[in-house]
Amino acid sequence: MEDVLIRVHRPIQPKNPVLVEGLPGVGNVGKLAADYLREKLPAVPYATIHSKFLPPQVYVNEDGTIRLVSHELTYYRARGPGQRDILLLGGDYQGISPEGQYELADRVLNLAVGLGVREVYTLAGFAQGHLIDTPRVLGAATSSAQVEAMRAFGVVFSKNDPGGGLIGASGLFLGLGRIYGMEGACLMGETSGYFVDPRSAEAVLRVLANVLKIPVDFTDLEEKAREIDRIAQKIHEAEQKPIPAPSGVPREDLGYIG
Amino acid sequence: MEDVLIRVHRPIQPKNPVLVEGLPGVGNVGKLAADYLREKLPAVPYATIHSKFLPPQVYVNEDGTIRLVSHELTYYRARGPGQRDILLLGGDYQGISPEGQYELADRVLNLAVGLGVREVYTLAGFAQGHLIDTPRVLGAATSSAQVEAMRAFGVVFSKNDPGGGLIGASGLFLGLGRIYGMEGACLMGETSGYFVDPRSAEAVLRVLANVLKIPVDFTDLEEKAREIDRIAQKIHEAEQKPIPAPSGVPREDLGYIG
Amino acid sequence: MEDVLIRVHRPIQPKNPVLVEGLPGVGNVGKLAADYLREKLPAVPYATIHSKFLPPQVYVNEDGTIRLVSHELTYYRARGPGQRDILLLGGDYQGISPEGQYELADRVLNLAVGLGVREVYTLAGFAQGHLIDTPRVLGAATSSAQVEAMRAFGVVFSKNDPGGGLIGASGLFLGLGRIYGMEGACLMGETSGYFVDPRSAEAVLRVLANVLKIPVDFTDLEEKAREIDRIAQKIHEAEQKPIPAPSGVPREDLGYIG
Amino acid sequence: MEDVLIRVHRPIQPKNPVLVEGLPGVGNVGKLAADYLREKLPAVPYATIHSKFLPPQVYVNEDGTIRLVSHELTYYRARGPGQRDILLLGGDYQGISPEGQYELADRVLNLAVGLGVREVYTLAGFAQGHLIDTPRVLGAATSSAQVEAMRAFGVVFSKNDPGGGLIGASGLFLGLGRIYGMEGACLMGETSGYFVDPRSAEAVLRVLANVLKIPVDFTDLEEKAREIDRIAQKIHEAEQKPIPAPSGVPREDLGYIG
Repeated sequence: MEDVLIRVHRPIQPKNPVLVEGLPGVGNVGKLAADYLREKLPAVPYATIHSKFLPPQVYVNEDGTIRLVSHELTYYRARGPGQRDILLLGGDYQGISPEGQYELADRVLNLAVGLGVREVYTLAGFAQGHLIDTPRVLGAATSSAQVEAMRAFGVVFSKNDPGGGLIGASGLFLGLGRIYGMEGACLMGETSGYFVDPRSAEAVLRVLANVLKIPVDFTDLEEKAREIDRIAQKIHEAEQKPIPAPSGVPREDLGYIG
Repeated sequence: MEDVLIRVHRPIQPKNPVLVEGLPGVGNVGKLAADYLREKLPAVPYATIHSKFLPPQVYVNEDGTIRLVSHELTYYRARGPGQRDILLLGGDYQGISPEGQYELADRVLNLAVGLGVREVYTLAGFAQGHLIDTPRVLGAATSSAQVEAMRAFGVVFSKNDPGGGLIGASGLFLGLGRIYGMEGACLMGETSGYFVDPRSAEAVLRVLANVLKIPVDFTDLEEKAREIDRIAQKIHEAEQKPIPAPSGVPREDLGYIG
Repeated sequence: MEDVLIRVHRPIQPKNPVLVEGLPGVGNVGKLAADYLREKLPAVPYATIHSKFLPPQVYVNEDGTIRLVSHELTYYRARGPGQRDILLLGGDYQGISPEGQYELADRVLNLAVGLGVREVYTLAGFAQGHLIDTPRVLGAATSSAQVEAMRAFGVVFSKNDPGGGLIGASGLFLGLGRIYGMEGACLMGETSGYFVDPRSAEAVLRVLANVLKIPVDFTDLEEKAREIDRIAQKIHEAEQKPIPAPSGVPREDLGYIG
Repeated sequence: MEDVLIRVHRPIQPKNPVLVEGLPGVGNVGKLAADYLREKLPAVPYATIHSKFLPPQVYVNEDGTIRLVSHELTYYRARGPGQRDILLLGGDYQGISPEGQYELADRVLNLAVGLGVREVYTLAGFAQGHLIDTPRVLGAATSSAQVEAMRAFGVVFSKNDPGGGLIGASGLFLGLGRIYGMEGACLMGETSGYFVDPRSAEAVLRVLANVLKIPVDFTDLEEKAREIDRIAQKIHEAEQKPIPAPSGVPREDLGYIG
């Protein structure tokens, strides 16, 4: 079979579109943001991507039907003032080998450049290793002009973060994107790295919504964030409470979050 | 060499055949079922598949001759009322890498679609982590119509199982099969996951035999199931019996089954 | 680069040649036997094989020059009564992945079949897990006729050994060889599996020498075997001797051999 | 995408050039030497190499812009008496798989041979496992003539070092280079192997500068070496000083260097 199999569902002729990537990763921030954006735009299916660089796995839906793991390209046609067409890449997994990462990113970029994409935004989480009250959005970009442009939207460019660079799809879409003549930026929401983080996804998406001039209703994402907060809070409380002696569970074993 | 080398032993012209897959996996349920079915139909050799995605290994038969690990496609020509031709895929191993899983499944599906296959059934075990008295057959299918059709044969579709989806050949043959325009279902026999489980294989095969309208004599498989029962029983008894103090083996070390 | 790069050093036109394979493995038996045979025939270089399926490594010779790891095909032209031409395959490593194992074996077999090879003998060790006084030579073969032929040379075919089959080059050359229409046998010298075993290599080579009607002077190999015996003996004695208390080395730490 | 993507920045027509390789490895000696040489010559960019055999990673520069991990070929045009043109290979990583090592080396050698390269020098560290006061430069070469030529420059060829041969790019460029008809040598600076070692890089580079008749100002590299010395010295002193009892850190935990 083809290493990367792209099945296009409908022909599209986007005008000066941007590509937005959000795949699973740290805190699942990129995927949460991209999936939420797809739902709220809403964006319609454009192409489904299967690959031997993804796990040999199907998901079983609640009704018993199966779905082969994939990346999905969806399409939003500009309809508001100052908006642009958007190609949105989401999916179940990042490529499961370095080679797979390169091949998957390259095939999507190749397709995107043919559709006129010259600009790419990638969404990701940045693990700080401690709880974050108000996540900042850190950035990395393809050019100094892009750095300045993102700074104007509140994105933080730090000399020290991310120290080791970006590993995975969000970095690769920028790095390979440049070879395809694309400019762009990676928007990284600060997150603890300990659990999925809708609040960090919201921070990232608020920046992107401003950049792309898209009104997004964040109610559902904020609700999801509060839900995670409640879970975290319960764990935190359980941690503070002295555990009755007879139960025999050492206190330290419950303390890995918080 | 070719990544997947298919050696066809004889030309066949099947009529509206179904593909049945049963490779090694959880409790060896799929392989036990497929091997038993091949023997009882009986199905005749159609093609042997070698691949660098299988281990570099030969088996040594009792007479000292060797056999390179392979997948085997066998063929059963419909001979009873309401029956259909069957292509049956068995083998020694699943592909030993994600890439290999995809390539092996794709090549067989490609061959099968050329032979007129539009329907595929995959046989597998579903590990429950505890002993199962009467294994149910859980299902996953390519469409709602298939879900309903399987339900009529007693297959259980559960909202929660299998939660993480299906990993490996049995899922992939359905997922990739859909791309080839095939409908089908995975039949998963409940099993503890601790040992090979002919009883679970029997449960799966009873459903399949009903679906395909094939009379199967289950005597030998039931005998094999009783044999495993006897072994499990002995281990269980050994566990119950107090071990004489001087032997020095702590009781817990014998108790991992039962 | 080519996955497997074969550099032929001289044209040859062998008559009805046999292929003999001996690569590193259990007890290094196969490699010891093949290297000794090459030296004693002597066989002359025919082709050097480099591959990305071998480690990215060069050896440094005593004079400071380097040599890229390789497989080597050498050639012996029949010169005695009843002899046949021999292609001898040796090398530094087996392929370092399953895929590499298949590709390397396939390319050599492909070359060999073009040179008229219809028969292949593979040399290997069989780990018994305990010291072996007089190593038997166990066998596996491509056909019942080959089994009988080898039995006549004293090769032992056992119902139980090797139970799990043969993994690696020695099995693969037989298994893939059959696809190329070759007959042959694997000769496995019993060995402890704890150290390199020239005595086992000698046992294997004595059978092969009889099969191929080649007089081999075993003096040097026997000397090498005695050398290993002396080392093993010293370790064994060190183990028997009570260690004086002050030295502080616990006795058990020296006892892993013997 | 291409497995190895070479983007040439400018056409060059070198005369009888030599190739010099210095990639990350033991003590980072090869990379330190090659990067320092590039800066001091100075060499100008010739080609950038991206590959799926490098990690899927971008680095983030201090100004927030990104750079995809790469190998870089830079070019120095001879300008002094007796000098030759130089192609200098540096980079962020060695290939991350054996296959990748072969492919990356092969593609660069292929390009280099087309540019007239017939001679290759590779720079590396050789881990001795203890602190080295005055690092010697050990050698390995493609021919006896090269061994003698390097000896005249003070390179040490030892019967025992390196015992297991050279693993990685520095060995491979010589081993594969020979297949391309190139002569050359590997220059290995002795190093402890415990930290990056500019002093070892200096030793290696002094030999290379003599071989290539290039005046190199070593001031900055010596300063870097003294800096590392100071850090090592501090660790050493901390180790010597008795740690006050209350602090509770066992002395041994600080002693792994020195």
